[in-house]
Formats: sequence, C-alpha cells, structure tokens
Amino acid sequence: MTQLIPASHQDLLEKPLYAVVTTVMPDGQPQSTVVWVDADDLYVRINSARGRQKDKNLLNNPKVTVLILDPQNAFRWLEVRGVVEEATTEGAVDHINALSVKYTGQTYFGGFNTRETADTQTRVMYKIRPTKVTAFPGS
Amino acid sequence: MTQLIPASHQDLLEKPLYAVVTTVMPDGQPQSTVVWVDADDLYVRINSARGRQKDKNLLNNPKVTVLILDPQNAFRWLEVRGVVEEATTEGAVDHINALSVKYTGQTYFGGFNTRETADTQTRVMYKIRPTKVTAFPGS
Repeated sequence: MTQLIPASHQDLLEKPLYAVVTTVMPDGQPQSTVVWVDADDLYVRINSARGRQKDKNLLNNPKVTVLILDPQNAFRWLEVRGVVEEATTEGAVDHINALSVKYTGQTYFGGFNTRETADTQTRVMYKIRPTKVTAFPGS
Repeated sequence: MTQLIPASHQDLLEKPLYAVVTTVMPDGQPQSTVVWVDADDLYVRINSARGRQKDKNLLNNPKVTVLILDPQNAFRWLEVRGVVEEATTEGAVDHINALSVKYTGQTYFGGFNTRETADTQTRVMYKIRPTKVTAFPGS
C-alpha cells in the first residue's frame, strides 16, 4: 500500500474523509455511493452489508474504484482502481466498528437500509487490492 | 430534470460543488475523476477534452454516473446514473467557460493534460440523460 499510494496523498486515506466507491451494474452502468474507507498494508478496505447493490455488483464484477477528495481542495484527490480480492464476513463487524470510531469517534450505531434490520443485516468487509492509483495533481 | 432531481437535492447541482464522474473502462473497471457539472432542463452536463480516458470510455460505453456530495454533510449526496445522449464539440468551449464562471468566477484558464496544448485540445460537452437518481438520505 505505502508503495502504491504516493506519500503526497496518503493523508487522504488516513483522515476521516468520505470516499466515493463505484461498482458496475450487470448492464454496465456505474453505481456510486459514499462510504467510509481505511487501508492496511495491502488493501484499501470498505464495509457494506450482504444483499446491498454494491455487494451484489461486486460478486458479479470484483472491479471497483474508490475516489477520495480533499474537502479543503477539490482539485486534490486520489483515485484507487482495484479488485476485491476478498469479501468476508469474518472480522467485518470489528471493521465497521473501527471505521465508525475513525469517522465518528463512536462504535457503529447500525445503519440499515429498507430491507435490513439489526437481526438480518450481515456486515461484509471488502479487501480491495489496488491495481492503478492516480493522485491528482501529480507531484 | 426538475422532475427527476428531488427538490431536496437540487441545490447540489446548482451550487459550485465538485462532482465525481465515473465511466467504465473496456475491461469493466470503473474510472473516476473530479469534474465541474451543471444541468439544463433535460440533461446533467459535464465537459472534457477529446482523447482523454473518460472521452474514450464514453465512446465505448455511454453509461456514466455522477455523484455530488454536500461538503457540509457527507451523508447528504446525489447520485445520477445516466447515458450520454450527445457528446458534442458544438458549444463546448462556451460550456467550459460557463462552468468555469460558475466554479471560479472567471472564464476558463485552459487546463491541459500531458498530451494536450492550447492548440491541440478539443473541448467536448457531454449531455447526460438521467435514467436513475438516488438522493441520500431520502425524504
């Protein structure tokens, strides 16, 4: 990760900045949502719930792109194109809690979409292996 | 447009807020960049230059998605999925100047990528017909 993400833009992944994640619908239409994001040594990681649109899209096409804007300077941004190498429920609840602490200072309150309840929601962590990184502006 | 974009989120298109636009590479990988955006009665409109990656992608697959975040509240955003119904050089210079005035207060300074010069850059305006709009949170 540290090799792939330019030092000039690593802060965008470290700070609690919202990311736009895009998957591709079966018909070829991009689907974008706003998510929390973090990274470990190998992967950029996002978290969703089983059955949501991006979960279904990623099962069909694991190619995914994450873009993080600098809210102080919209012309400074980081695009990470990659592939979901692992989509796992293991550790996914711990991961959403860690993301929630990063972004809100508190453990996850449990956001549900219209088809989910606390009992039916199954968290999934997606480990994205970066394949191409664009930092804008370049250094 | 006014029928498709909920009144609660029309301000996101009217204000000079940066948009994340995503096209799809020939191999199925989403490609995301940050752009200026506006809208008329029918279309959401972006502007790029001939030969750039998103221009090439849109010639291959006209499905495109634009997401605009509220910088004051990242959990308030608007996703417009759509199709480029027209990609035209006609009026494209006027359009980039209008966008520039919207976002910077001045006409376009002429940003070029590494393969472009003032002489070789050909502006293109993309008219996106919305096919599905998601406003978050819903009303």
